Amino acid sequence: MKGPIGIFDSGLGGLSVVKHLCKLLPSRDIIYFGDTGRVPYGSRSPETIEKYAHQDIKFLQSQGVSMIIAACGTVSSVAPHVGENLGIPFLGVVDPAVKAAIRATSNGKIGVIGTAATINSRAYTRKLLKENPSLEVFEQPCPLLVPLVEAGWISREDLVTREVVRRYLSPLNEKGIDTLILGCTHYPLLKSIISDTMGQNVTLIDTGLESAKAAAKIAAPISHESHKGKCSFFVSDKVDGFKSIAGMFLGYEISEEDIKRVDIEKL
Amino acid sequence: MKGPIGIFDSGLGGLSVVKHLCKLLPSRDIIYFGDTGRVPYGSRSPETIEKYAHQDIKFLQSQGVSMIIAACGTVSSVAPHVGENLGIPFLGVVDPAVKAAIRATSNGKIGVIGTAATINSRAYTRKLLKENPSLEVFEQPCPLLVPLVEAGWISREDLVTREVVRRYLSPLNEKGIDTLILGCTHYPLLKSIISDTMGQNVTLIDTGLESAKAAAKIAAPISHESHKGKCSFFVSDKVDGFKSIAGMFLGYEISEEDIKRVDIEKL
Repeated sequence: MKGPIGIFDSGLGGLSVVKHLCKLLPSRDIIYFGDTGRVPYGSRSPETIEKYAHQDIKFLQSQGVSMIIAACGTVSSVAPHVGENLGIPFLGVVDPAVKAAIRATSNGKIGVIGTAATINSRAYTRKLLKENPSLEVFEQPCPLLVPLVEAGWISREDLVTREVVRRYLSPLNEKGIDTLILGCTHYPLLKSIISDTMGQNVTLIDTGLESAKAAAKIAAPISHESHKGKCSFFVSDKVDGFKSIAGMFLGYEISEEDIKRVDIEKL
Repeated sequence: MKGPIGIFDSGLGGLSVVKHLCKLLPSRDIIYFGDTGRVPYGSRSPETIEKYAHQDIKFLQSQGVSMIIAACGTVSSVAPHVGENLGIPFLGVVDPAVKAAIRATSNGKIGVIGTAATINSRAYTRKLLKENPSLEVFEQPCPLLVPLVEAGWISREDLVTREVVRRYLSPLNEKGIDTLILGCTHYPLLKSIISDTMGQNVTLIDTGLESAKAAAKIAAPISHESHKGKCSFFVSDKVDGFKSIAGMFLGYEISEEDIKRVDIEKL
């Protein structure tokens, strides 16, 4: 498994997987595709999400990747079958998060938040109950959280974001959950606000981190440990719009030369 | 000019133009296209917006329309040239709104709100100053208002929406504007909250209403006044998702048979 690791998302959220994977496997090359020309996926129909995901995968395969991570909660939930028969390992964010949640819960009450499409798919609930039918699972769609993150309203003190989070999460708090799956790779940027709302006794499962850990188990470091992996970024809208928010997710600035534009609709 | 009137938007906002036009010209047939598979346009780059608008127009032309209205503040501001050389009348929402704002203002201080792409284009400011260089124009991007409307958080008492509107509009209030252009066809659904924030002395210009009035002047009623016009709706994502929110904009429910899906990326 020598080729680069391919990671795709509807937009920017999947960069949180890149961030974790760079730390876990610093020697591996990564190719990231963000479908910024058609983001968000979470409000679209399953058919459209599946079509877009097929095109995203086709692009990564054209780059010779040796493994693909769907770093998008919506694709992983609604269209996990897009990863079948690719001839290379394919990983979504649902399975690793489900395993982590089951390890974390004590009282068997687990909450799941995600985009409208993710929650409508009931993918998390089905997988959780398959692993352990005695669990109680409570799902909540949070359609405004992605726009809030993309607008940069992520400060812990932001009154609007705090009130939106409170409105979405209060029903889950009332159910007495002790574990909450952040079923969208944008949500870790709101971790402090979510934690303030849910209280310290609720464990938050970061789907991006869990999928990066699972990927690191499959894709071992390359032999020359001294090799410093390179990250290349591809997007379907303008490069400068991506650059300005990417730093928020990655924790470091990227240079414009490392980002290229792709005409994804032609694939 | 016998063919139907074609109207397009990135998604649902343009339905407010349909609503007004049906009242002004009840005898005319209307064909609406909403690019629900790629909404929103307002956060994308000018190149991508232009590409999408060309495809939207191509679809309407394939339906034999006799006139096209870009009922999308973003397309009208960023890519008005997409309507050149079509051989049929083409109308955006900027010009009619600019004229209405100039008629409305007494103190010459005009505010403009819109999506990020609309405000970055400075289309409203340029047109207003071209008409009257002594005007003072103040622009403000409001990227979260479209997601709030699409989430249905439009009640006058909604604390989140009120606070978001207050945060965006306070700088305009401080400038002492007496006229505010709602530069996005989603915003009329927030009219009461915007009015509460700005005060009764500020005139709100509804771009959808103004463009419908301008279109009605060009497209006269057809000769058989008794003919009841038919509205046909086309979308690029699933039909049922569109149906459920369309009623909010139109003020009446539409039947699923009047909505069809189009593969817009192939055009």
